[in-house]
Amino acid sequence: MYPKQFEKLVDFFRCLPGVGAKTAERYAFYLLDKDPEEINAYSEALKDSLTIKRCQTCFNLAEDTLCPICKDPSRNQKLICVVASAKDVLSIEKTNSYDGVYHVLGGLISTSKGIMPQDLQFESLKNRIEEDTQEIIVATNLTLDGETTALYLNKFLQDKQVLVTRLAQGLPMGGHLDYADELTLIHSFAGRKSIDK
Amino acid sequence: MYPKQFEKLVDFFRCLPGVGAKTAERYAFYLLDKDPEEINAYSEALKDSLTIKRCQTCFNLAEDTLCPICKDPSRNQKLICVVASAKDVLSIEKTNSYDGVYHVLGGLISTSKGIMPQDLQFESLKNRIEEDTQEIIVATNLTLDGETTALYLNKFLQDKQVLVTRLAQGLPMGGHLDYADELTLIHSFAGRKSIDK
Repeated sequence: MYPKQFEKLVDFFRCLPGVGAKTAERYAFYLLDKDPEEINAYSEALKDSLTIKRCQTCFNLAEDTLCPICKDPSRNQKLICVVASAKDVLSIEKTNSYDGVYHVLGGLISTSKGIMPQDLQFESLKNRIEEDTQEIIVATNLTLDGETTALYLNKFLQDKQVLVTRLAQGLPMGGHLDYADELTLIHSFAGRKSIDK
Repeated sequence: MYPKQFEKLVDFFRCLPGVGAKTAERYAFYLLDKDPEEINAYSEALKDSLTIKRCQTCFNLAEDTLCPICKDPSRNQKLICVVASAKDVLSIEKTNSYDGVYHVLGGLISTSKGIMPQDLQFESLKNRIEEDTQEIIVATNLTLDGETTALYLNKFLQDKQVLVTRLAQGLPMGGHLDYADELTLIHSFAGRKSIDK
């Protein structure tokens, strides 16, 4: 029904996560009204994305061999925060409260999806750990896969004399006791702190 | 924080209707894992979309001077369905129940958005109407702008000896009486039909 160029545009948008036929058509129709210069710029942006590299140290997104965080001399190289993906780096960076560096695993161990430790950046993490590395902060999701990965990591780094920590578990900001699940409540009781006076 | 190629990709997705920062990042991260050939194909698809034309007769999307519907000799050229956009053509075509042709106005008259009759394809519609044109079916949305456009169109075609009709108004399939608004109920009462025996 539609011209084939239009169909192709719709097909492109349909490949995106969570985008169905209706939404893809809406996106495509929206682009039809754009200026040719803008469309060309978008087309270039897509092509340019192929030049995005991975940092050789931490596997975060990078323009060169190292990412901006690994290059930054003001970051504490003795503190390594382990995350599943580059997306998580941004989430933590947005808090402006962490001054260490990162290590991006490239996923989480998942028996259901068939992702095994050798598919992830565990070895490169071990190789990065030096005498003066103080702490490995495991910041994976609090899901089954995230917990599995955290436990594996702890065991994997056993022979290294380094402190491995996990993010605190408890009630989120604005959380209601009556909506919290039991595990969260158990963790928030176990991790309770004295109130500063 | 992100490489600038990545930022550009996110910016592209952010320009799409209803896409916020989180969704745009999600789309961009998804594309990072795609094969280079696929990315190149998408980039081409965007560029190729610039070659999409408008049908010279009905202003539907077209690859050549005429759209597939205007070219089709089996379509009834005496029946013209007037719609706001090419998107509406597809919605009606999906029903497989209309065999006439279309006329795409390119929008609806809207005083709030400053869209005036001269911005839309009214004159070209008038020029299309011939001696043997039987009916103009006005299939604009049942919104304020859609109704305004329908009323304007009826007046605009007054001097042409042609029947101008409007789509039936009433309860939608699966509609509940207690959820229907008053105008819909009024229209469905006024337009009631005898039940076939």
